[in-house]
This record gives sequence, C-alpha cells and structure tokens, in this order.
Amino acid sequence: MRFQAPESLSEQIAQHLGQRIVTGDLRPGERVQELKVASELNVSRGSVREALLILQRRHLVEIFPRRGAMVSKLTPDLVNSLYDIYIDLLCMLARKVLERWSGQELMGVMSQVNEVRLVIETLENPGADAAEKVIEAGFGVMQYAYGLVNNPFLEETLENFRPAISRTYFVALGHFRGELKQTDRFFNELAHAALEGDMPGLEGVIQRFGDHQRTQVLSILRAQGVA
Amino acid sequence: MRFQAPESLSEQIAQHLGQRIVTGDLRPGERVQELKVASELNVSRGSVREALLILQRRHLVEIFPRRGAMVSKLTPDLVNSLYDIYIDLLCMLARKVLERWSGQELMGVMSQVNEVRLVIETLENPGADAAEKVIEAGFGVMQYAYGLVNNPFLEETLENFRPAISRTYFVALGHFRGELKQTDRFFNELAHAALEGDMPGLEGVIQRFGDHQRTQVLSILRAQGVA
Repeated sequence: MRFQAPESLSEQIAQHLGQRIVTGDLRPGERVQELKVASELNVSRGSVREALLILQRRHLVEIFPRRGAMVSKLTPDLVNSLYDIYIDLLCMLARKVLERWSGQELMGVMSQVNEVRLVIETLENPGADAAEKVIEAGFGVMQYAYGLVNNPFLEETLENFRPAISRTYFVALGHFRGELKQTDRFFNELAHAALEGDMPGLEGVIQRFGDHQRTQVLSILRAQGVA
Repeated sequence: MRFQAPESLSEQIAQHLGQRIVTGDLRPGERVQELKVASELNVSRGSVREALLILQRRHLVEIFPRRGAMVSKLTPDLVNSLYDIYIDLLCMLARKVLERWSGQELMGVMSQVNEVRLVIETLENPGADAAEKVIEAGFGVMQYAYGLVNNPFLEETLENFRPAISRTYFVALGHFRGELKQTDRFFNELAHAALEGDMPGLEGVIQRFGDHQRTQVLSILRAQGVA
C-alpha cells in the first residue's frame, strides 16, 4: 500500500480544466479566463494561474504574457507535430525496455497487454466511457514500461504528452467503434514483438499504429472543416 | 525587427533562480523557500510559486505537495537518464532536419556552426564566461534546426531540457579548457555529416559527443564524492 500526499489545489484545478479540454467541453482556441474560473470554482486567482502553468506543461493551453490563456489549437500541423514526437518517444521507451530486458522478464508486459484486450472484449457500449477505459488500460502498459526503464525524464515527458494525445482520441470518438479491433490487434502485435526482442518489429508496430491514429484524427478534423 | 511582450514577472523570477541553479550557486538538493525568495526579491509569494512551476517544467526543481520545492539532485542515475533522453531528442531533431532538407539548403547550418567555432577560437580565458558563450553559440545551432523542422512540441521539449544540460556543463567547468578542442571537433563533424545527408554518421557524432560529455560529468561527480 502506498500513501500519497493529496494533490495540491492547483493540481486539482488543472485536472478539472484538463478533463474539460480533453473531452472537448472547452474548445480549441477558446480563452480560459482566470477570474471566471476562480469564481466558478470558488478558488483564488493565484491557484488558477498555477493550474494554467501545469496545463501549459501538458500542452493543453498556451499562455500569452499579459493576454491570458487559450486552449491549444488543434490544427493538422499541430496534430502532425504531436504524433511525430509522441511516436518517437514511444519508440525510445520500447528501445530502452528491450536494451535492458528480454524473454521471461517481459512476461509482465504480456499480462498488462492482456488487461487491455480484456477491457476491449468486455466493452458493450462503445462511446465516451469506452474510449476512456481503453485509453486508461493502454496507458497502463506504458506505466509498466516506465518501471522497467526507470528514466524519470522520459516518463515525465511522455506523461506530459498524454492529455494532448487523449484529446485527439476523443476527437476520433465518432469512429471509435471501428477502432477497437485495430487497437486490439496493435496491443497483440506489440506484446509479441516485445517478447521476441524484435526491435525493428516493435518500432514498426508503434509507427504503424501511431500513423493510423494520426490519419483518423486528421480526416475527422478535415471533415469538421478545420483543415 | 520583432517586438516581444516583456517576460511575465514569474518568468523573470524563474530565470533568476534558474541561473543560480545552473551555475551551482543553489546546490542540488537545497530547499527553495517561497517566503524567503519572495522577501529577497520583494515579490509576492504567488509569483514565486509560479516561478517554481516553471522551473519544475525545466527539470531544475522538484515540488513536493505541502513540503515545498527542492533543487533537483544531480546523481549519476539522473545524469544518465538526462543524457539518454537528450541524446535521443537531438537525434530526432537531426533526423527530421535531414528528412526535409538537403545539400545547399543546409548551408545555413554550416554558417551557424562556423559561429560556434569562431567563438571557441577567440576565447582567451576559458572559465565560467567562456562556457556560457560556447553553450550559447551551440544552442544557436539548435535554434536554427528548430526553424527547419518546425515542430513546436520537439522544440519545447528540447528547450525544457536545456537548463538541466547547461547545469551539467557547469559541473564540468574545471575540465572545460580541455573540452574546447573536443567541442570544436564535434561541431565540425556535425556540419559535415549534415551537409552530406549522412544520417547514421550524424547520429553517431551526436551519440559520441553526448556520451563523452556524460562521461566527463560523471567522473567529476565521482571525484566530488556524489557517486
């Protein structure tokens, strides 16, 4: 059992606002007004400012000196840039796992992956809730990998991208039903490449799935008339 | 000419404290007390809290809920983790430059590199100031590469690591005189591999120089009895 200090107030506000941005309740490009948020949540303006700095680190808002904060835009260029670095960071994580571990030591990955696949199998009503569950289980595999690699900087960097990536999944929600099989296949291929210590294979699996997600998101943005 | 909004107060405080951490004036593991900093700089406690969040993003302080902030430690494990991700991110940047540009289009890199080499040649008294100048010129090459690659997430991630990397250079300061030739050779090899579009060569140059720096820093930490 692990006892954790409760999150700071600014972290709680950041999580609340972050969730609203990820699910699209706060729209890309929308202004986030400190005073309004402070009065809505009945917290100090200073706590909201701190929360905005945390959200900036998580790539969800942009802060302009003396002009305030805005929900990050979601243009095709930004989606491409986001997936470019995220896919590379995932490959880095995978490479570092395989540099240090092999064979039997990686059975834990398999059990994490099986959990994701179980979540996917038991989903009855794909929708917002389904997406959240699959995303959560998927990030569980990454958490496990963090423990194997033990690089706090890589973990922090990847975790800071997690909300922005989650936001793109939510954009793709309308198409999510068809995505489940694809996601299931991805995790299956991922686990097998890892167990076989097949680094080029593992990178290929990550690159293909990342590119597939990116393409989905871009086509939806295009349909929404953003592109 | 570009007009920029002046930095926010919290950014100015972050830069002031950041400089003290990078140069070792604030020691690894030392507590940073909000109230003390606020009274020293005659600013509000809220502004100091914001500055600490900015420094956390730049990997220079750690913040513990309800226990306050501490200058990040500089253990061998942390130095290794830092160089691991930094070298990989630099290779990512180099890869993305070569994916999009080649030959004549890369002559600008050459002129940036020549600036670094000129700085090195004209240094008369290697010391703290010399290190800062070389580091600054070296980061100028990266700035140029950012412009070629145009990925704001990669730029931001690399920039957030820059102060922590600079801090390790400062640790290596005692040995800096001997490092100048090595640094000069690195930038020369870097420019040639880039102009030839030789990606494996470029990755090798970055990896070797990064590993060399890492080894220097680790040996100094060991000598200081940290390891």
